[in-house]
Amino acid sequence: MEILDKIKLPDDLKRLDIQDLNTLSDDLREVITKYTLSNGGHLASNLGVVDLTCALSYVFDFPKDKLIFDVGHQCYAYKILSGRLDEFKGLRLKDGLSGFPKREESEFDTFNSGHASSALSIACGMARGDCLGQIICLIGDGAMTGGLFYEALNDVLTLDKKVIIIINDNNKSISDNVGFVNEYLKIVRKYGNEISCFNIETLNNIDGHNICDLIGKLKYAKNSDKSIILHVVTQKGKGMPCAEEDPSKYHSVGKTGTLPCYGQIFGDTVVELGKNNKDIFAITAAMTEGTGLSEFSKAYPDRFIDVGIAEEHAVTMSAGLALAGKKPYVAIYSTFLQRAYDNILHDICLNKLPIVLCIDRAGFVGGDGETHQGLYDVAYLGSMPNMSIFAPKDAQELRSILKWSQNYDQPLAIRYPKSEIASDFGNCCEIKLGKWEYLANNNNKNVLISNGEILSNTLKAAEILKTKGISVDIINARFIKPIDEEMISSIKNDKNIFFFEEYTSNGSIYMQALEYLNKAEHTSHIYGVNVENKPFAVASRKELIEAANLDVESIAQFVLSKN
Amino acid sequence: MEILDKIKLPDDLKRLDIQDLNTLSDDLREVITKYTLSNGGHLASNLGVVDLTCALSYVFDFPKDKLIFDVGHQCYAYKILSGRLDEFKGLRLKDGLSGFPKREESEFDTFNSGHASSALSIACGMARGDCLGQIICLIGDGAMTGGLFYEALNDVLTLDKKVIIIINDNNKSISDNVGFVNEYLKIVRKYGNEISCFNIETLNNIDGHNICDLIGKLKYAKNSDKSIILHVVTQKGKGMPCAEEDPSKYHSVGKTGTLPCYGQIFGDTVVELGKNNKDIFAITAAMTEGTGLSEFSKAYPDRFIDVGIAEEHAVTMSAGLALAGKKPYVAIYSTFLQRAYDNILHDICLNKLPIVLCIDRAGFVGGDGETHQGLYDVAYLGSMPNMSIFAPKDAQELRSILKWSQNYDQPLAIRYPKSEIASDFGNCCEIKLGKWEYLANNNNKNVLISNGEILSNTLKAAEILKTKGISVDIINARFIKPIDEEMISSIKNDKNIFFFEEYTSNGSIYMQALEYLNKAEHTSHIYGVNVENKPFAVASRKELIEAANLDVESIAQFVLSKN
Repeated sequence: MEILDKIKLPDDLKRLDIQDLNTLSDDLREVITKYTLSNGGHLASNLGVVDLTCALSYVFDFPKDKLIFDVGHQCYAYKILSGRLDEFKGLRLKDGLSGFPKREESEFDTFNSGHASSALSIACGMARGDCLGQIICLIGDGAMTGGLFYEALNDVLTLDKKVIIIINDNNKSISDNVGFVNEYLKIVRKYGNEISCFNIETLNNIDGHNICDLIGKLKYAKNSDKSIILHVVTQKGKGMPCAEEDPSKYHSVGKTGTLPCYGQIFGDTVVELGKNNKDIFAITAAMTEGTGLSEFSKAYPDRFIDVGIAEEHAVTMSAGLALAGKKPYVAIYSTFLQRAYDNILHDICLNKLPIVLCIDRAGFVGGDGETHQGLYDVAYLGSMPNMSIFAPKDAQELRSILKWSQNYDQPLAIRYPKSEIASDFGNCCEIKLGKWEYLANNNNKNVLISNGEILSNTLKAAEILKTKGISVDIINARFIKPIDEEMISSIKNDKNIFFFEEYTSNGSIYMQALEYLNKAEHTSHIYGVNVENKPFAVASRKELIEAANLDVESIAQFVLSKN
Repeated sequence: MEILDKIKLPDDLKRLDIQDLNTLSDDLREVITKYTLSNGGHLASNLGVVDLTCALSYVFDFPKDKLIFDVGHQCYAYKILSGRLDEFKGLRLKDGLSGFPKREESEFDTFNSGHASSALSIACGMARGDCLGQIICLIGDGAMTGGLFYEALNDVLTLDKKVIIIINDNNKSISDNVGFVNEYLKIVRKYGNEISCFNIETLNNIDGHNICDLIGKLKYAKNSDKSIILHVVTQKGKGMPCAEEDPSKYHSVGKTGTLPCYGQIFGDTVVELGKNNKDIFAITAAMTEGTGLSEFSKAYPDRFIDVGIAEEHAVTMSAGLALAGKKPYVAIYSTFLQRAYDNILHDICLNKLPIVLCIDRAGFVGGDGETHQGLYDVAYLGSMPNMSIFAPKDAQELRSILKWSQNYDQPLAIRYPKSEIASDFGNCCEIKLGKWEYLANNNNKNVLISNGEILSNTLKAAEILKTKGISVDIINARFIKPIDEEMISSIKNDKNIFFFEEYTSNGSIYMQALEYLNKAEHTSHIYGVNVENKPFAVASRKELIEAANLDVESIAQFVLSKN
């Protein structure tokens, strides 16, 4: 490091000359690459905006001026330049730096954003609120496929307040599937600003790696008295040849395990099912690889649809597929599926359409923090009419439910974590709607009920309990909705019934069973361990499960404490 | 009626000449006006598309061809022409016709849509699914402000399947706040289709009341082998002079009561608070009048924002206002707020911003049916970190919570129904976060807990119970979240505790209290009456409350049955 360690705050950077600024960029890339490779994170995206971030910090007065990131995962250089160099080694680790802007971390972070497309809406609000300083949105890397961006664009185009909009065009975000913005930029390029009825000037084709030029254009924008769009062309992965060549691969890096994960099993299974069942379509919202659909996309390109970061459209468009008699499997991470809440309720559930939501990253998500936890899907899907929810205990059960789902004629959600598959239960009894299975049934005093990955922990906890002289019955509550009322009813009175679940308690099996057993005047003791509805900051998945008392030791301890 | 009663199905209409078609339009307007004025409904919107619907039915072969309405409330003429003339007198009444397309009602209805902006996504899916027949989207009357529309537009522009897109431009939907589509249409008008890189032809400025011209253009679109946009200009309220003049007033008509409703009290109160508190902003998504904000919009135009039908942007933009130190009151109906689920969770709750969601039409909504019930807000807001939820029992309590909310520094939701205010309790003890109030506290065996409008029913039920010799304690559980654990703990063992609530049980007070009391090993009997999570079809609010057993008689009966 030649320059970076001398920069404590963005103001220090204003004294540098262009050559020093370029050296600073190199330093930043070195630090970002080092810790992102070791800790995981968004590598290519962050390398792409290093020069732009230096220029921004040179021209503007942060934190008096406000920089709003969209999407949030482009903020590494900015974090380092705003006094967080020393903490950067703790990126994405427990008690360490978030990989996204976070107000609790620094006054330099304007808004906590992990999901895409929100920045321009935030900017409209801050501008209307007459916030001090300049308002700059750094938009890109997928943010322009989301409908929210257009809602905000419709607003900002006629807004009588100043916002500086930087469109980071890294050839990954502005592609065919963002036709509208693309169209706009092309028309402006061809005919100039005068044809536009938008009250916004646009500067096009700014080289995002020429700091000198960037500074000039940013100064112009700063001095302008009305809103302006800067179209900046950057290279994703800039400065790291392998990432420049394959930015998708290096978009987000992380440790990969040796065991297969749920996403892979899902991907393999839909490829297999799709061979004979030509009605099967697979839909993703810009997460082909992440959701395990790469193979499907190659095997059946006509039945694979990536709509870009547009979860609402992914879900409603799938409703259209179902109306045409097809069988859509919609693979979206739990946290991003939140964006399609009304589409699921209104377009899928009220229309009773046979769509399968394949919810990856359900439960705790390592490394990404508050904005990416998949803890709410059960709570919000649980109150939707006609929706069923399933959580497989292992690879075999995921395969079974996917196979079964082909002929299920109503909405179904299957949730599974981003995790290697911990156990192979070696057995999976036939799937029937709302039916659970006993893994151990000996009329023991203690009945442990769980599902998904946490069922493995429960099973291991049972072994510990055995060494303490406590034998337990175990139920795989694979259907979270509807619950198996028959099996619950069959549990005799005066037992201890325990529930262990990796989601918040609204809509949980614990709460449903509690209500059911309360109505039945059942006299067992009922105990539930669910995830609290509070934000969970960056940590590994293992640490998060421990924090929620859902690890093997905590489960055993909890059961012991009630005996 | 000269012609209409001879039309049993759209095919009958193909034999008519232009003059007869015009007469048919007049007949349709007569029927629509008559029953919409008597039963309530969307009058001006439906009058505007009568001629277009006749032309569509003349040219296309429904139901083999598929007509998708966006928004759904433009479907009256279509319903009448597709064999539902006789049933139309039951529009919006219990066991009668829905005011929105409904597949269960007729094979002519393609998709149940009550919320805006979904049609083009549905069309993309149906086209990809190689659905038989032509696919026609009738888009308009607000549908083009919603982000989902743009997500679909980005998709359809590059889709290799045919979709006919009719943009119904009634000067209400295409206004300043849909700058982008407006811009596109202007550019195309000026430079012709050749400049567009979209693979879609556009026919502009078609007179939406000239059936002959419409038929020609629709035939052209039918015979085209690729997607096409028809820009049709209609007059909202066409044929009814007063509605033509003031289409907003006649957009939706309904019986209005003589007592003030919650929306009015909300509107009056924010005007009053806004006088001294200059930080207060009011935000709506195209529902200025419906949410009671007309006065505020006139009194403080600089602090009033109508973003159009763009609920996501309304919420996230308000997050920006809060970041700038302002106090936003975001007034959106419960059913439409669903569209902003992730914006509330991600942008408001995780950022812990002091925004007040003013949720009108919470609970049962009369006349509109499945797609407009406000039954889910408690379920989905209940699991969001940092969110509190309040339901006022009367006008005074709504005023009090609004006043209190000015200084509350975290997210707050206030929910109230579309209803005249049934009672004036005459008293409202001081608001404290999570604190309930006793309305009757005499250590009775039976404790009745409720909130909002249902509390009035509970109170009246208590009077009936008194005549049967049963005295009860009554609690106003005005904070749905957090619940008043102290008050619940203070209830002695071995009581009958009853909960009556106008929302689904996930997140309800009943479920929260059940969990709390279960943990505390409380020995009271606990009974909850919540709304089932099933679709509720058209009926009056009164009928719906009865169906959910939340009317006075049912509450009294339920308590009696447990004694």
